[in-house]
Amino acid sequence: MGKLYVIGIGPGGLDHITVKAMRAIEESNIIVGYTKYISMIKPLIENKEVFSTGMRGEEERCREALRLSRNNIVALVSTGDSGIYGMAGLILEMKSDENVEIIPGITASSAAGSVVGAPLMHDNCNISLSDLMTPYEDIKKRIKLAAEGDFVISLYNPRSKGRPHYLREAIDIIKKYRSDNVPVAIVRHALRDGEESILCTLGTIDCEVVDMFSIVIIGNSKSYIKEDKFITPRGYKI
Amino acid sequence: MGKLYVIGIGPGGLDHITVKAMRAIEESNIIVGYTKYISMIKPLIENKEVFSTGMRGEEERCREALRLSRNNIVALVSTGDSGIYGMAGLILEMKSDENVEIIPGITASSAAGSVVGAPLMHDNCNISLSDLMTPYEDIKKRIKLAAEGDFVISLYNPRSKGRPHYLREAIDIIKKYRSDNVPVAIVRHALRDGEESILCTLGTIDCEVVDMFSIVIIGNSKSYIKEDKFITPRGYKI
Ligand SMILES: C[S@@+](CC[C@H](N)C(=O)[O-])C[C@H]1O[C@@H](n2cnc3c(N)ncnc32)[C@H](O)[C@@H]1O
Ligand SMILES: C[S@@+](CC[C@H](N)C(=O)[O-])C[C@H]1O[C@@H](n2cnc3c(N)ncnc32)[C@H](O)[C@@H]1O
Repeated sequence: MGKLYVIGIGPGGLDHITVKAMRAIEESNIIVGYTKYISMIKPLIENKEVFSTGMRGEEERCREALRLSRNNIVALVSTGDSGIYGMAGLILEMKSDENVEIIPGITASSAAGSVVGAPLMHDNCNISLSDLMTPYEDIKKRIKLAAEGDFVISLYNPRSKGRPHYLREAIDIIKKYRSDNVPVAIVRHALRDGEESILCTLGTIDCEVVDMFSIVIIGNSKSYIKEDKFITPRGYKI
Repeated sequence: MGKLYVIGIGPGGLDHITVKAMRAIEESNIIVGYTKYISMIKPLIENKEVFSTGMRGEEERCREALRLSRNNIVALVSTGDSGIYGMAGLILEMKSDENVEIIPGITASSAAGSVVGAPLMHDNCNISLSDLMTPYEDIKKRIKLAAEGDFVISLYNPRSKGRPHYLREAIDIIKKYRSDNVPVAIVRHALRDGEESILCTLGTIDCEVVDMFSIVIIGNSKSYIKEDKFITPRGYKI
C-alpha cells in the first residue's frame, strides 16, 4: 500500500520546515512538485525519483502524484502551507481511495511577518490578487471589505506580468479607508535565499518593485513602525 | 551579549515545530512562557532554567524575558505563530536595545485546517473573539464584513467562560450571508495530545462543545464536505 504526503515546506529555507515534513520527505521514494520548490529542498532529496513540472501543470502534477501513490510513498511539495493557495485542496478534490495525509507548513504571511516585525498580531486576512480562478470583481470586493473592517491584509500573488496594475488598484481601494501613513511591508523571498524587504506606507509604496516572489502586508489603522520594525499592537497598555 | 528568541512552537505536537525553532530552544539557557506551553516542549528543555507564569502574566513574562536576555540566551515560547495573537508584538513594543529574533511557527488555523482537510484554500481571515483588548462592537463588525466578503473565517479564542455567547452571535451574523449548509469545523487541540475534531454546518453547530483550546473554521459559499474532508475549492475545473 502506498501513501501520498501533501507537504507544506514553509517559506523555502530548510530551517523553517517542520520535523514532520522533513521526515515525510525522507520516507518518500518519489517527490512531486513545481521545479522551483523542488530545488529548494534539494539537499533532502538526493537519490530520490523526482517528477517536476512548470507553473501551470498543477492538475497534471496532482493526477500523477495520486497515481504514483498507489504503489509508492510520494511527497507532493508546496511552499508555505499546502492548505493555503497550495495543492492540498486540489488533491482532496481529485482523490478517490488513495491514502492521503496533509502536513501543514508556515505560510508566507507568517514568514514575511517575522522578517519585518509583528504586523499580523491582530485580526488579519490573506487575499490572493491572482484572477486566474477568481473574478477580479470578487477580489476587489474582498479588498474593500477587508479595508473597511480594519483587518491587517496580506496580499499573495501580488503582481503578475499579465495584470501588473491590480496591486496599485488594491492599494487605492485600501487608501479610501486608511490613512496614507499606515505601514506597508514588501517582503521578497522571505526566509529563503535572496530575502529582501522594504518598509514603506500606503502613501509611498512603489508597486513597480513588487513581483510574484513577494508578499505585501498592509497594516491596520493602529500599526506603526518602531526602529525599523513593523508592529500591529494587540492592545496592551504599556 | 545575550539574545532573545521569540519562538512560535506551532500547534503543540513536537513534530510540528520547525528545525530553526528547535535549534533556538536548544541554544537557549532560559525558557520563558505560559506554563501550559512550556509543558508541551518538556522533552526539549530538560536541565534548562524555566520562568513560567499563568495566563494573565503576559506583560510580566515579556519584561522578564527582555531583562534576562541581557546576559543569557532566552527563548520566549508561544504556541502557533508568535506573530499571530502571540508575544512577538508585545516584545517589539516593549524592547529597547535588547537583541531580539522572531522565529515563526505554524498558526492554529493552518494546523486545524490540515486536520479536517483543506478549508483555507482560498481567501481567508483570522478573527479573535476575545474582547479583552478589542471592543466587542469592532469584533462583530469584522465578522459581518468577513461574512459579506465570503472569506473563509477562522475564529481564535472562540468561547471563553466569561463570554460564552459571542460564538453563537458570530455564527448568527455569518448566517445572514451564507446558507445553513456551509461547512464548519471545530478542531480542539489540533496536532497535539488530545486532538478532537467535529465537522458540522452553520445550521447544525453546537456551540456548547467549543472551548478555548479549540478553533472554529467556517467555510465560504463554495466549501463542501467530501468523504469527511472539508474542502474549499480554489476554482480548478476538474
Ligand atoms: C500560489 S501562492 C502559494 C502560497 C503558499 N502555499 C503559502 O502558504 O505561502 C504563491 C504566492 O505566495 C507568496 N509567497 C510564497 N512564499 C513566499 C516567500 N518565501 N516570500 C514571499 N512571498 C511568498 C507570494 O505572494 C507568491 O506569489
Ligand atoms: C492567544 S491565541 C494564540 C494563537 C497562536 N499564537 C497561533 O498562532 O496559533 C489562543 C487561541 O489559539 C487557538 N489555538 C492555538 N493552538 C491551537 C491548537 N493546537 N488547536 C486548536 N486551537 C488552537 C485557540 O483558538 C486558542 O483559543
